[in-house]
Amino acid sequence: MGAGFTASAATSGIKALAFDVFGTVVDWRSSIIRDGKALGKAKGLAIDWGKFADRWRAGYGPAMNRVRKGELPWTKIDDLHRLILDDLLKEFDIPNLTEPEKVHFNQVWHRLDPWPDAVAGLTRLKRKFLISTLSNGNTSLLANMAKWGKLPWDVVLSAEMSKHYKPDREVYLMAADYLGCKPSELMMVAAHKSDLHAARQAGLKTAYVPRPLERGPGGKADPPDPEFDVVAKDFIALAVGWDA
Amino acid sequence: MGAGFTASAATSGIKALAFDVFGTVVDWRSSIIRDGKALGKAKGLAIDWGKFADRWRAGYGPAMNRVRKGELPWTKIDDLHRLILDDLLKEFDIPNLTEPEKVHFNQVWHRLDPWPDAVAGLTRLKRKFLISTLSNGNTSLLANMAKWGKLPWDVVLSAEMSKHYKPDREVYLMAADYLGCKPSELMMVAAHKSDLHAARQAGLKTAYVPRPLERGPGGKADPPDPEFDVVAKDFIALAVGWDA
Repeated sequence: MGAGFTASAATSGIKALAFDVFGTVVDWRSSIIRDGKALGKAKGLAIDWGKFADRWRAGYGPAMNRVRKGELPWTKIDDLHRLILDDLLKEFDIPNLTEPEKVHFNQVWHRLDPWPDAVAGLTRLKRKFLISTLSNGNTSLLANMAKWGKLPWDVVLSAEMSKHYKPDREVYLMAADYLGCKPSELMMVAAHKSDLHAARQAGLKTAYVPRPLERGPGGKADPPDPEFDVVAKDFIALAVGWDA
Repeated sequence: MGAGFTASAATSGIKALAFDVFGTVVDWRSSIIRDGKALGKAKGLAIDWGKFADRWRAGYGPAMNRVRKGELPWTKIDDLHRLILDDLLKEFDIPNLTEPEKVHFNQVWHRLDPWPDAVAGLTRLKRKFLISTLSNGNTSLLANMAKWGKLPWDVVLSAEMSKHYKPDREVYLMAADYLGCKPSELMMVAAHKSDLHAARQAGLKTAYVPRPLERGPGGKADPPDPEFDVVAKDFIALAVGWDA
């Protein structure tokens, strides 16, 4: 994996880029630790906030599956985050939060910081392509996060607009439809293989951007897969690869 | 109708603004005349492009009604514009356009220029609110137009995301849902009474911005209605009213 890539047949004809957000554009773990520490200081809590963040994130897939299986009706990620948070407050023995404090802490997912290369890379990619989110996060979460982190999206697309979650095929096809291109003219950018494999199955092109720090200093990125059309070490390398 | 307005009970608690686009944010008529003249020069056509623009716009309501009545399946505005264009090319006796020329001319709706106050006003309003389109124009049309005119939307919402056209109630309620607010926390901004009346019926707040030049130098704006929560002469006055 070099600093960039060389535009090739696989990347010609691309009109729009759709970005996974949690982990790919923003560093959810550090941001939750940051807000957790502030809350802990205010409320006199001694919590391992890294572990708390990991547990919150880990609850997300199973919560979406409860919707997929019909145990829950269609539910916004904000509300799934709150269901998980309420369980974690018991698990971590945090009894003394007021309702406004819970609401505010749950909205930490609207205040996630971008990776250091994200804004510069997106700004450069935006000159050439329509750039859009394509996240399971609900639209207002993504819009508030964009204001928070100054993310220069052309379009904010959320899985909620298809009433499916990724990696369901409907989400990727909806994005191509709304962005006015064929699936093969849309490239999914993500740090996660499962997202890219599903995008590829739906006919999209794929760009893999590893984020080895997503799960903390001891974590590691998914290994690249020869099926990915592009591998770039960050969004600046992705932009440079196209301009080269 | 003064230069601004004074924030009041009716405007407190507003979290997001949804903007009608054709006529309210952009000057469709002048932009179509501009592209029509360029096309006419290239192809040796003598056409009244103002009349052509008016006829194109006039075809839009009846075309949407064909979808509402079930004569056509769900159809993007790009495709409705093309249906109308094909009729107009016959009506105005323009036989000599190639298919790429028709495609390009139809996309003039992606290249509409903002009214002179639009970018400055939206930029200022964006500091205080989530600002979104809420247009019958399809998402990619609105996204390309935003790039063209440097419109600083936080979110691009299109009626197509509800598979209804304005003034159907579903469109306004979808916007409140996706923007993460109650209908009463969302203000619809438009130059057209019918849009604002429907928004109000759906529980939204309303801001009327007259655009007397929308239908050309001889046109006039809808008269203000006491039902509107706010009347402002342009987007800068709207922003100043809130900041005052």
